[in-house]
Amino acid sequence: MSKPFDVTAIGSAIVDVIATVDDRFLLEHGIAKGVMTLIDEYRAQTLHKALSGAREIAGGSAANTMAGLASLGGKGAFMGKVRRDRLGQTFAAGMAELGLRYTTRMAEDGPSTACCLIAVTPEGERSMNTYLGANLEFSRKDLTDAEISDAQVLYIEGYLWDAPLAREACLKAIEVARKVGTKVAITMSDPFLAARYREEFTAMLDAGAFDILFANEDEVKSLFESESFDHVLQRVRGWGRIAALTRSEKGCVIVSADEVHIIEAAPVVRVVDTTGAGDQFAAGFLYGLTRKQPLDRCGRLGALAAAEVISHLGARPETSLRKLAAASGLA
Amino acid sequence: MSKPFDVTAIGSAIVDVIATVDDRFLLEHGIAKGVMTLIDEYRAQTLHKALSGAREIAGGSAANTMAGLASLGGKGAFMGKVRRDRLGQTFAAGMAELGLRYTTRMAEDGPSTACCLIAVTPEGERSMNTYLGANLEFSRKDLTDAEISDAQVLYIEGYLWDAPLAREACLKAIEVARKVGTKVAITMSDPFLAARYREEFTAMLDAGAFDILFANEDEVKSLFESESFDHVLQRVRGWGRIAALTRSEKGCVIVSADEVHIIEAAPVVRVVDTTGAGDQFAAGFLYGLTRKQPLDRCGRLGALAAAEVISHLGARPETSLRKLAAASGLA
Repeated sequence: MSKPFDVTAIGSAIVDVIATVDDRFLLEHGIAKGVMTLIDEYRAQTLHKALSGAREIAGGSAANTMAGLASLGGKGAFMGKVRRDRLGQTFAAGMAELGLRYTTRMAEDGPSTACCLIAVTPEGERSMNTYLGANLEFSRKDLTDAEISDAQVLYIEGYLWDAPLAREACLKAIEVARKVGTKVAITMSDPFLAARYREEFTAMLDAGAFDILFANEDEVKSLFESESFDHVLQRVRGWGRIAALTRSEKGCVIVSADEVHIIEAAPVVRVVDTTGAGDQFAAGFLYGLTRKQPLDRCGRLGALAAAEVISHLGARPETSLRKLAAASGLA
Repeated sequence: MSKPFDVTAIGSAIVDVIATVDDRFLLEHGIAKGVMTLIDEYRAQTLHKALSGAREIAGGSAANTMAGLASLGGKGAFMGKVRRDRLGQTFAAGMAELGLRYTTRMAEDGPSTACCLIAVTPEGERSMNTYLGANLEFSRKDLTDAEISDAQVLYIEGYLWDAPLAREACLKAIEVARKVGTKVAITMSDPFLAARYREEFTAMLDAGAFDILFANEDEVKSLFESESFDHVLQRVRGWGRIAALTRSEKGCVIVSADEVHIIEAAPVVRVVDTTGAGDQFAAGFLYGLTRKQPLDRCGRLGALAAAEVISHLGARPETSLRKLAAASGLA
């Protein structure tokens, strides 16, 4: 019986606010260059005001993945919290435009919609300032069980482990997914996050809470506390479910109980901005997987989507991934 | 019961003649720059005379591997044909110096000892001119069965398939090895060679003639007629024996019936000359394998030996591989 959604995701609902600035702007506003800094609401407002003429684009890791899935022609739903404010409307409008189901109730009060204020200096360096805002309010009450049972895969953004209520909601969502036979995928999001929740994540992996693991090389090495990629590969093989381990220009390694695939990175003329590479890889991979494609093909779809997004600024595809996949004989 | 030799190899017995020249020399002598050209005896003599002040170093692919094995502290024997001439004595002396058993009867007449005349231009480019000479005379009569049964592994240089008598001798040697329980390893040597003998090699692989396959990425893609590394990986997994697939700076992939290991290349400060990387990889790998090391460790030993040889001119180690391995906790 086919399900209406390929993937339902739970993730951070963030609007990226991108503006080109000069180095003096960074100095004046005390912005640490080239890194991501968490900021509070007051500072978010100040910076937002200072970044005049900024572009606002719906973002967030798992939401970006859903945008990629939609670009491939996949169907999905997203759960994540915004407040009913201007950025919240921007985020919701972005999801609607992509044909993605997004019905999480907007908060009427509390912290405002999350934003990531990105100051791009002329040489192309991005300095990111993230305000988590309304995401910290996502809770079990925001789960829509039907959207979990209506999807082949529930995709969970690891970043949410830093938001206690959202983490609790994810645990509940996994429970629901288990009951209704929806596969559960998790993305590790960040090497430090993988380290912070190492014990919990590895215990959950071994207990069978997840069917699919997405992680880049740094994240999976951090998760399993090893400096050796081969060591983590053996650990993941022993786990026995599906793991998609991305390795930047080295491509990716896809592992299941019986299979190991080594997939090359797709060619890119010029790498402009690697933000979103992992998000789009997951999009391509999940698109293939929910269409019962063999794992090597899923990996190649992931590589194709990642190659598109790193060849321009921004974390969502600018070219139809469906057309690109068709041109490569992958769709 | 332990055997006196770790490895017995059959390969080309070649002396490398290396000299630094200028571009005018290449033009005057009609040497194609940067490639390997097969030449005849007359031309070999002419060029050898012209390359005044050249260094003569025992070489040959499998012989280089045995030099690496010796540098690691391994024991071995080598079979390959030289003529009783000055270069033949140089080759034999090189093997003796390394403590390797080398008793193949020297030819008293016929083609002279093989040499590879290497003209190195100031920018470091090598233009190679190979005269196969006495190697073409290696035949079944030159096999010493005891040296095959006395070794854990019989290592065969694929290049010999271009020498009909030597190829026939290799087939006989494999038969002997099968009878006495010596494992058989082959190295593919060259992508064009793998293509020329594709049907024979793949039939032999599938018939169980080889226990261990060494090939670089180009060679294994050529052997299995595929552009996709993952495709050849699956083919090799299906084969079910041990394969060591080298990928230059991407490291190597080691495969057996149950195992897949992805090993990083060992760090190199500056790549000077990649000649001999595959030969030394095989040396490290076989050293580990004959000491019953796990496959990932064998791969790391191979990577270590390859890293040493590409950091200087020439195809044999200049630093004790045993000491390097000890420093890396691998010996």
